[in-house]
Amino acid sequence: MPCRIAQVHRALTISTWEPRFASLIITCLLCTAGAAFADKGEQHVAKDEVKRDRKNVLVVYVDDLGYGDTGAYGHSVVKTPHIDRLASEGLRFTQFYAPSALCSPSRAGLLTGRTPYRTGVESWIPDDAQVALGANETTLADLAKQRGYRTAIIGKWHLNGGLHMQDVPQPRDFGFDYQYGLAAWVKNGAVRNSKEIPRRGPMFPDNMFRNNKAIGPTQKYSAELVSDEAIQWMDSSGSDPFFLLLTYSEVHTPIASPPEYLEQYQEYLTAEARDNPSIYYFDWRNRPWRGRGEYYANVSFMDAQLGRVIEHLRGKEMLDDTLVIFSSDNGPVTDAALTPWELGMAGETGGLRGKKRFLFEGGIRVPGIIRLPGRVAAGSVEDQPATALDVFPTLAQWLEADVDEGVPTDGDSLWPLIDGESFERSQAFYWSIPTPDGMEFAVREGDWKLILDGSGTPQYLFDLANDWYEVNNLLESQPAIRDRLLKTFQSRRAAVENDPLARARNAGPH
Amino acid sequence: MPCRIAQVHRALTISTWEPRFASLIITCLLCTAGAAFADKGEQHVAKDEVKRDRKNVLVVYVDDLGYGDTGAYGHSVVKTPHIDRLASEGLRFTQFYAPSALCSPSRAGLLTGRTPYRTGVESWIPDDAQVALGANETTLADLAKQRGYRTAIIGKWHLNGGLHMQDVPQPRDFGFDYQYGLAAWVKNGAVRNSKEIPRRGPMFPDNMFRNNKAIGPTQKYSAELVSDEAIQWMDSSGSDPFFLLLTYSEVHTPIASPPEYLEQYQEYLTAEARDNPSIYYFDWRNRPWRGRGEYYANVSFMDAQLGRVIEHLRGKEMLDDTLVIFSSDNGPVTDAALTPWELGMAGETGGLRGKKRFLFEGGIRVPGIIRLPGRVAAGSVEDQPATALDVFPTLAQWLEADVDEGVPTDGDSLWPLIDGESFERSQAFYWSIPTPDGMEFAVREGDWKLILDGSGTPQYLFDLANDWYEVNNLLESQPAIRDRLLKTFQSRRAAVENDPLARARNAGPH
Repeated sequence: MPCRIAQVHRALTISTWEPRFASLIITCLLCTAGAAFADKGEQHVAKDEVKRDRKNVLVVYVDDLGYGDTGAYGHSVVKTPHIDRLASEGLRFTQFYAPSALCSPSRAGLLTGRTPYRTGVESWIPDDAQVALGANETTLADLAKQRGYRTAIIGKWHLNGGLHMQDVPQPRDFGFDYQYGLAAWVKNGAVRNSKEIPRRGPMFPDNMFRNNKAIGPTQKYSAELVSDEAIQWMDSSGSDPFFLLLTYSEVHTPIASPPEYLEQYQEYLTAEARDNPSIYYFDWRNRPWRGRGEYYANVSFMDAQLGRVIEHLRGKEMLDDTLVIFSSDNGPVTDAALTPWELGMAGETGGLRGKKRFLFEGGIRVPGIIRLPGRVAAGSVEDQPATALDVFPTLAQWLEADVDEGVPTDGDSLWPLIDGESFERSQAFYWSIPTPDGMEFAVREGDWKLILDGSGTPQYLFDLANDWYEVNNLLESQPAIRDRLLKTFQSRRAAVENDPLARARNAGPH
Repeated sequence: MPCRIAQVHRALTISTWEPRFASLIITCLLCTAGAAFADKGEQHVAKDEVKRDRKNVLVVYVDDLGYGDTGAYGHSVVKTPHIDRLASEGLRFTQFYAPSALCSPSRAGLLTGRTPYRTGVESWIPDDAQVALGANETTLADLAKQRGYRTAIIGKWHLNGGLHMQDVPQPRDFGFDYQYGLAAWVKNGAVRNSKEIPRRGPMFPDNMFRNNKAIGPTQKYSAELVSDEAIQWMDSSGSDPFFLLLTYSEVHTPIASPPEYLEQYQEYLTAEARDNPSIYYFDWRNRPWRGRGEYYANVSFMDAQLGRVIEHLRGKEMLDDTLVIFSSDNGPVTDAALTPWELGMAGETGGLRGKKRFLFEGGIRVPGIIRLPGRVAAGSVEDQPATALDVFPTLAQWLEADVDEGVPTDGDSLWPLIDGESFERSQAFYWSIPTPDGMEFAVREGDWKLILDGSGTPQYLFDLANDWYEVNNLLESQPAIRDRLLKTFQSRRAAVENDPLARARNAGPH
């Protein structure tokens, strides 16, 4: 049997962004695949053992994909055969939450299992900002590294102000061996700076980085570049299992898809969009509505590129040895645009109230799929709520990785739920976010959800068991429940504001 | 030549709801078609004269149909061949406004040419409320009556608390000879009161009235009943031209359409909707999203029923002798539901910001079409803004009807615009409405639009010429324009609050 025990102890007092491994106290018994091959006579058996024991991990985190944007979640027009197949071969959650209603905080939550405000990431991070994921945080990649996995993030990072920055922590400071992708969203200077208005041209990203080195202009749309790189990386050297965080920047604005995907949705394009393809998105603001087709095309394009990765693994008979987790960082940008960069989007919440940037369900309830044959029953559907904050403890338990008990996390391991054992959440769901209307908080306990304003005053109380769409505010009619959730909120908020890692960072010289 | 001069002088001091003609001072020289037939030898010529001179008037005012909900206005999925044909045979406005973002006030504005707060109708009118269109208002039907037209409203009224009420003004108190239809929206007690949850059954209206007498249960959906009645009424006795206000209650909730229309949009229904047709709309609240298909079906059903009326006139060679005006009372209910009764809707604003109940463009910019061969060029498109408040002065000028110059109106006759003459609006557009977030005001002057909160404080300033979607708030960057529009708003508001008819009503014993 390959060993299963690895121990990592870390000092909690790290207070700067400096590469952390230098200042960590690590006592780690690594179990490499090479060790399992020590006895050549046992090689074949040992390989199988490795496969069984240390499966690959593929976490797919897409951008701004709504609860209702895929076939698996009921979209009746958009074709997402690969995501749908993941769901039909795995478990689909009907109430899976993002840690936030915004990109950066949700990614911080996914990586750490900690509600984003603990991690130093409270909102989306502007270019060149000094805001970043706290250098003293432990990530999913760190867990995998404990077990000798090779690790990569391929796709969007957005946990700092840019992949070019020297003075903030970067992916390879968080347990990732390899980085490829962009910081926040697709940019293309040639299109943006063209002199003719409206500006036109394909949005091939020119802001991609590999191991934090800019790679310059490209000739493909973002998702295809990302899948190319993912396949290449998965195939690259080493018999160690891999941990890959695959983070397509689709369907975040500016959306851009190859013509064949737009062709599929011709009937959902207005004459404006058909006659004027590839207009730079900021120039849409005083032109006619483009229809929903460009958004639909982008979802299908992303699905197809994810499909290339999945089918590559299937073709190499590696898929069933890979734990696949699929989700989105927040609710969609709908056709109810509030900013120039939201114009032309057509995300669907599946009827849920709200959208990206708000704490109604449409802003935080997202697709959530787990595939792992032999452990996760194909085609199963789970109605109990879960969150991307659960991924960290789920992976930690699965890898039998050591985690520092002194660092508070906010999720629960999902294995009891998956295995059909009794499952009780250890604490209420908690969200905090700056919305366009000011700071907003929410807690969910059982089927009850309380939304509060920036001063901590309750604004909405919903019974999600009987009001899926949050259209009946029971704040006045259920004062006892309101007050119970208010107390829960206050206690959760106090805990978050007193987070030891956050305090350690704030106390430091940074 | 038939005479063209009719004079009606009305006392302005009417202060009760009592049937107004009893207390009006009327000196009216009616020119009936019968008078034109006095010389039998001239009968054929006279008939032609009548046709040329006194064409029929058909004003179609549909419910909650959004700016982007029809093919003519760019919807790429919903089929609306009859509305599209009206547009292609007439003039289509790209910036046509409803008087309000709500049903009742907009209808009050359409009928009187006066911004709704002048008329006593400030919001939508709840069942049995004592709120009603002021009895001293002059309506489109009154103008037509001046010229001897027979007049009817067939469809939704919603200018009082119910067609059963004895103590509030009713349609026949406002110049309508004939009334058929419902007060506010489709009801069906058998479905609503069924004991099994979810409640199920076809929403055939049981709240239809004919001349304010309840007609009991029906066996057809609302639009079909309305078109049946309209065709019958148009064909009924009399050679006088008609004025028909045709007000489908589609696509207001609860929407309900015959199965053949749902069939057309099967691919836009989720499994929930396909497997569970005819669930009472209040029971959707904790069930899965139904998709957009039911809404699409309802738009097409309404279009088909309007088509029956239009094609009936065309078949009788009466269509080209009919002035047809088509519009909607406010923006659509979108999939961004805020209340239980908004669930399952999928109206489109064509990308415009906002929706029904808000003063962003999506709440107030609506389809606007005028068809009149010989005067209105087929297939023309008008980009200058207009409003349903213009219908009253447009009709008054066309009919050469007398209007009381002492009663302020808020629109302008559209004939100069239609005829290609110089057209300058006499005053800024003005809206006031209670939104879910409190009172809201808006003014538009030229391409600039200012939105103000209930205290009259500016909240948004938009340059609609360069920001069709209202995503760039220029409140801070354009202080001179903001202040100019603020003054305009203050002056318009003062005029509205000092409206002489409103003051007369308020001073009365009512």
